[in-house]
Amino acid sequence: MTIAGVGMMGGSLGLALREKKLAGEVMGWGRNEDKLRAARKMRALDSWTLNREEALKNSELLVLATPVGVTARIGPEWIAAAPGRCLVTDLGSVKGKEVERLTRLAVSPRAYVSSHPLCGSEKTGISAARSDLFENRICLLTPVAATRKSALGEMQRFWQYLGMRVFALAPARHDRIVASVSHLPHLLAAALVNRVGDEKLLPYTGTGFRDATRIAASDEGLWTGIIDRNRKEVIRELQRFGKDLDSLEKLIESGESATLKSWLRKAQLRRRKLELVFEQDDR
Amino acid sequence: MTIAGVGMMGGSLGLALREKKLAGEVMGWGRNEDKLRAARKMRALDSWTLNREEALKNSELLVLATPVGVTARIGPEWIAAAPGRCLVTDLGSVKGKEVERLTRLAVSPRAYVSSHPLCGSEKTGISAARSDLFENRICLLTPVAATRKSALGEMQRFWQYLGMRVFALAPARHDRIVASVSHLPHLLAAALVNRVGDEKLLPYTGTGFRDATRIAASDEGLWTGIIDRNRKEVIRELQRFGKDLDSLEKLIESGESATLKSWLRKAQLRRRKLELVFEQDDR
Repeated sequence: MTIAGVGMMGGSLGLALREKKLAGEVMGWGRNEDKLRAARKMRALDSWTLNREEALKNSELLVLATPVGVTARIGPEWIAAAPGRCLVTDLGSVKGKEVERLTRLAVSPRAYVSSHPLCGSEKTGISAARSDLFENRICLLTPVAATRKSALGEMQRFWQYLGMRVFALAPARHDRIVASVSHLPHLLAAALVNRVGDEKLLPYTGTGFRDATRIAASDEGLWTGIIDRNRKEVIRELQRFGKDLDSLEKLIESGESATLKSWLRKAQLRRRKLELVFEQDDR
Repeated sequence: MTIAGVGMMGGSLGLALREKKLAGEVMGWGRNEDKLRAARKMRALDSWTLNREEALKNSELLVLATPVGVTARIGPEWIAAAPGRCLVTDLGSVKGKEVERLTRLAVSPRAYVSSHPLCGSEKTGISAARSDLFENRICLLTPVAATRKSALGEMQRFWQYLGMRVFALAPARHDRIVASVSHLPHLLAAALVNRVGDEKLLPYTGTGFRDATRIAASDEGLWTGIIDRNRKEVIRELQRFGKDLDSLEKLIESGESATLKSWLRKAQLRRRKLELVFEQDDR
């Protein structure tokens, strides 16, 4: 198995594969020798190389664990260079039209199935890698019309072996959903920190603020790429959320406490239900 | 010492006082016998009563650990009934004009100094009480012109004994700050949960969403009271935040990735700095 890119996600994948003995050999590829050495030292890789052809030799699974912009750029040549029966995936947070293109490029018996494991964090780099990162988390697969069923099933089983719950949905639907559950919350957290930081109010923040803004500490380069690539959906979410805030403002201004209370109650019940789901996951 | 109201905050205070042996006797008051019994059983109280006069007998410190609305209603009569040298405080999240009024009602040698320990959570009730709740957290005191310096110093030392870092600021400034660092984040979290929940997207949420929305699980009654009492400042914060989101939307639409990246970078640096502060606290 080949992992291209050994950051937090790629490194965690290597650790998990080796711990569960799911791969004969985990080969790492990257552009930075020091990072690859660190990954090897952490036992996230069996071996590593800076050379694409060497990285792909005899590989049965290629995971492009590179940032979304890099994956779009290098994806076609990696797929073209992959061995005959190689299954190829990526871990990108935005899917867009790229999935169609890469799926067509993966000529049978090669196959490409795009993945998005929902287990990112504000931490980055190989030092943040954890072998249990994928356990009980969700992985979204985004098949298109040209995706072979057998490849989709294989990809699904791969993530299930790592302990993930797998859902399949169309790339466009995926991008709409993550704009709402991931990209919007990210931008709100950053906006909160920037607003409060401007006014030197950080010393007055408590645990609630801390939790609510944790994701704002994420890598800014990675996130610029994500927002840029999902611009249309992200803007739509910002607009819809802005309208929600306008309604909320009117509600608070009206002084209708009972309506405010049931709005807060609705959020409370939903959030507590979600906590139960997470607690189950954590067991 | 008397604690009126034995929820998460009052109960934690009792546990901390008894653990640190800061009080000869911790007397609890409330309107629900079962809750008082539970608090006694957890060793958050030495004794309890449903009777105000009994609760205040020989008390040197009265802590009104009741929700903000209740404190405004019962505060005057409790202050009037408190023994001669009793120091009185409350733990309310909104201060408003109430502090002026209660300070004047606490006729010397009685004294009233309003407190706001920033250590709330989405959990409520005596079962969520913890003796270390206050440790390394921040407590805001809101003195007014009539507040005696000696009483302010006494109140400050009290919270410091419990391990808190104490800041003093005017009630109006307090309310502006908490609207920004606490009430706005709370409403954003609830709005996120309500938006996403409407669309049955909860199954697709990851750890980022989980952290960002944790506070939305808080008690809706408590929070309706807080928002209602700080309505003016909360609306102002919602409006300012709405403008921030408009600018952000324009920025994303413009495709100026470098500007977006530095905006995200600013948030990242601030949030990481904040994490360092918290890590220090957690030691």
